[in-house]
Amino acid sequence: MKLKIKNLHWSAGRPVAILNDKTAKKLNVFANDRVAITNSKTVYAIVDIFPKLIKEDQIGLSEELTKIIKLKNKSSVKVSTSELSKATFLIKKKMQGKQLTEEELIYIISEIVHNNLTEAEIAYFTAAEKLNGMSMKETVNLTKAMIKTGTRLKFKGKYIADKHCIGGIAGNRTTPIVVAICASAGLILPKTSSRAITSASGTAGVIETISKVELSLKDLKSTVKKTGACLAWGGSLGLAPSDDKIIRVERLLNLDVEPQLLASIISKKVSAGSKYIIIDIPYGKGAKIATLEKAKNLGVKFKKISNSFKLNLKVVCTKGSEPIGNGFGPTLEMLDILSVLKNSPNSPDDLREKSLFLSSELMKLCKIKNARKKAEEILSSGKAYEKFKEIINTQNGKKDFDKRVESLKLAKYKKIVNAKHSGRITEISNEGINSLCRILGTPETISSGAYLHKHIGEIKKSEPILTLYTESKTKMKDAIKFLEEFKPIKIK
Amino acid sequence: MKLKIKNLHWSAGRPVAILNDKTAKKLNVFANDRVAITNSKTVYAIVDIFPKLIKEDQIGLSEELTKIIKLKNKSSVKVSTSELSKATFLIKKKMQGKQLTEEELIYIISEIVHNNLTEAEIAYFTAAEKLNGMSMKETVNLTKAMIKTGTRLKFKGKYIADKHCIGGIAGNRTTPIVVAICASAGLILPKTSSRAITSASGTAGVIETISKVELSLKDLKSTVKKTGACLAWGGSLGLAPSDDKIIRVERLLNLDVEPQLLASIISKKVSAGSKYIIIDIPYGKGAKIATLEKAKNLGVKFKKISNSFKLNLKVVCTKGSEPIGNGFGPTLEMLDILSVLKNSPNSPDDLREKSLFLSSELMKLCKIKNARKKAEEILSSGKAYEKFKEIINTQNGKKDFDKRVESLKLAKYKKIVNAKHSGRITEISNEGINSLCRILGTPETISSGAYLHKHIGEIKKSEPILTLYTESKTKMKDAIKFLEEFKPIKIK
Repeated sequence: MKLKIKNLHWSAGRPVAILNDKTAKKLNVFANDRVAITNSKTVYAIVDIFPKLIKEDQIGLSEELTKIIKLKNKSSVKVSTSELSKATFLIKKKMQGKQLTEEELIYIISEIVHNNLTEAEIAYFTAAEKLNGMSMKETVNLTKAMIKTGTRLKFKGKYIADKHCIGGIAGNRTTPIVVAICASAGLILPKTSSRAITSASGTAGVIETISKVELSLKDLKSTVKKTGACLAWGGSLGLAPSDDKIIRVERLLNLDVEPQLLASIISKKVSAGSKYIIIDIPYGKGAKIATLEKAKNLGVKFKKISNSFKLNLKVVCTKGSEPIGNGFGPTLEMLDILSVLKNSPNSPDDLREKSLFLSSELMKLCKIKNARKKAEEILSSGKAYEKFKEIINTQNGKKDFDKRVESLKLAKYKKIVNAKHSGRITEISNEGINSLCRILGTPETISSGAYLHKHIGEIKKSEPILTLYTESKTKMKDAIKFLEEFKPIKIK
Repeated sequence: MKLKIKNLHWSAGRPVAILNDKTAKKLNVFANDRVAITNSKTVYAIVDIFPKLIKEDQIGLSEELTKIIKLKNKSSVKVSTSELSKATFLIKKKMQGKQLTEEELIYIISEIVHNNLTEAEIAYFTAAEKLNGMSMKETVNLTKAMIKTGTRLKFKGKYIADKHCIGGIAGNRTTPIVVAICASAGLILPKTSSRAITSASGTAGVIETISKVELSLKDLKSTVKKTGACLAWGGSLGLAPSDDKIIRVERLLNLDVEPQLLASIISKKVSAGSKYIIIDIPYGKGAKIATLEKAKNLGVKFKKISNSFKLNLKVVCTKGSEPIGNGFGPTLEMLDILSVLKNSPNSPDDLREKSLFLSSELMKLCKIKNARKKAEEILSSGKAYEKFKEIINTQNGKKDFDKRVESLKLAKYKKIVNAKHSGRITEISNEGINSLCRILGTPETISSGAYLHKHIGEIKKSEPILTLYTESKTKMKDAIKFLEEFKPIKIK
């Protein structure tokens, strides 16, 4: 059936085609069924039925489809009912416990990238990966598929480097510090990061408190060329773009799918052109990985996959049983970073130490001698701070770093929580701190969050443990209630 | 945030809330995220963003939501972002291979019934059921949950009976004949059926060629009271309503999930008030179940579950390696049924025989003596035909059965396919016949389909094998191409 396009400025979060009820009847499709739309190529869309908006001879396209189809209003397209796509047979094959070939994985991932699979179909795929597992060969092929279906960057220079933490630790905002130190030491770091998924903030969200992070590929390249590094949001660059769609579906259950984790990280690094990579796997109670042994096992898998892509990859297993840094929430984490880079007397020691450790490990991997000493010298001398400033200014195209930093503000409502009795802080839950910050308004309200005055160790009665920041009285009440009920910080 | 309702006549196939872009920004939700809408109770919806349609202080509701919320235009509701629901934690628990309790399963199923879970979340649930399996106790609890979250019927009389085939065989339209025979023998059969899922037609679709099938609960009850039976579509009655939503998600991959199959069938029967049940499990090459042994294993599970609900259930394993009856497609199948009921000389023997077999098995289960002989007598004497007429007329509220039957018409284009050489028909693929009929236009175009002149056995050159019926020349060409390419009927 031929229908005329009506482009709607309508964001449905998935490719939706809106039909008149009579057209739907003729095509014999119901709402939520799939149709094939053919012009020079065929794309698939989910059907909505909206008679008031769309006439019988029209098809309304959601923004997600407008972007793919790129046809003007009233252009004519062929619309037909869509049977199961080949990708669904392949997903079923994986559900049946069989291995998928590189070609088959490319097919599935390409269908995900082109929005031709529904979230439910992606859920089946990730469930099959999780429950039936993937062999190392399959995981490598999955990684290849994720790289092939996206943009791939190339940079000049011998040591294109990156660091990546598998996450799960509150705070732990080492990336901007490591990037500043290592770029000062001469490494090239085309660093892209994500926004918060379940934490108080992601690296991209923290950088965004003082900088643009949605860079075009052109701006990203010129920033890296000029300063040796960048601190961009990875979401809009098209590097392994299937990843974001899969993560979105995993998030529905907060599911950790190991082959997907491995493929996700390695595909992003290869796509960004990195060759020297440090992978940080925090372990311990309350971390994603419970024990050192499990962390090492995961590390071995990272190493194996990296060999297939000729990467110089080193895994470091770090202690992850409590948060790192004092501030949690976009602005509070940026203030921690700045205090470390500026060598302020009250800067968090753990964040400084972990950043130095990761920097020197990455520098060592890139054949820099006396790496630890050099990293310390770069940080202490203020060179890292200057490099950070240069990166941010170049990224923004304006030399207004100081003004941006000065305008950082914490939230209107503030409350200090003191220890009710003397004792020992035995546990600070990463998940608990993240939930607390989410209640206070992070990551959306960048001025909100929590500041931790004490880490694990002794505390005296009435000493401050936490300061809470929020822009809403109700949220403050909810946060206090949460603290009392769930006790994310245990004092014995 | 308080927003004013705007009810839209928009069928999205799932509960969708349409927001203005500014409102979405304030709530910090993106398209495809979930929001909670609270009035006297809280319901959940998926976000679409459509600034042209919805003002900042408004929330547009899709039809699916309008039905649940039942508030007028401009009524005010509280809208907030929705965190993971408790059900997602429970689904994750099942993903982790743990058992779910009755209470937990009720929670999940109830969320499905109330549209509070997305299709992707339901996909995770069915994938976990499929890959981690369910214990018998869990399957019983799943069945209980599916019953509890729906309507439950009660009928007077001792022998409330039903028959159910697990499907997969083309044709095989025994239900109307069995219902007519058994109702004549005094059993009570509140029969509900589904429309086609992957076949050429479902029982409901076949009955619909001459009758209303979407009955209200009231009409269903009065039809059963008056005639001893009904032949209704089960979809709109609210019996185990979670089932349709789960089947919809399983269909994405044509997935067979055994615990779901067991729970689906038993929950529908218990909800309809049936106590005496024959389960027909066809087995063989091209059937859902490949061997008699596997069919028996599945039968044992049916039996075990039925004990928990105090049902008198008998499993019969029947040969399912070729289609049953001659006609495939709504009208062609109705003509087969009528020819059996009317004892026409050219009525399909296999359909007649299987209907008699199932009828006598069900009658035996209901303590009727000489069941086979009685069933034959009821059919041969025309009593079954009269009962069928009575049920259809009562269901329609009009005595116009003959007129309805006379108006049955086959499609405009007709083509006879003859044997190219003499030999033996060794295989007639159920799936192939279904695909052929789908290409010809079934189940939507009720006049289309295929008529099989020969079953497995000898055939001579130029003898007719099939007659194809369709309303479209293109479809006829496609069907011929399909026959030549896939050879669903093999002659050796």
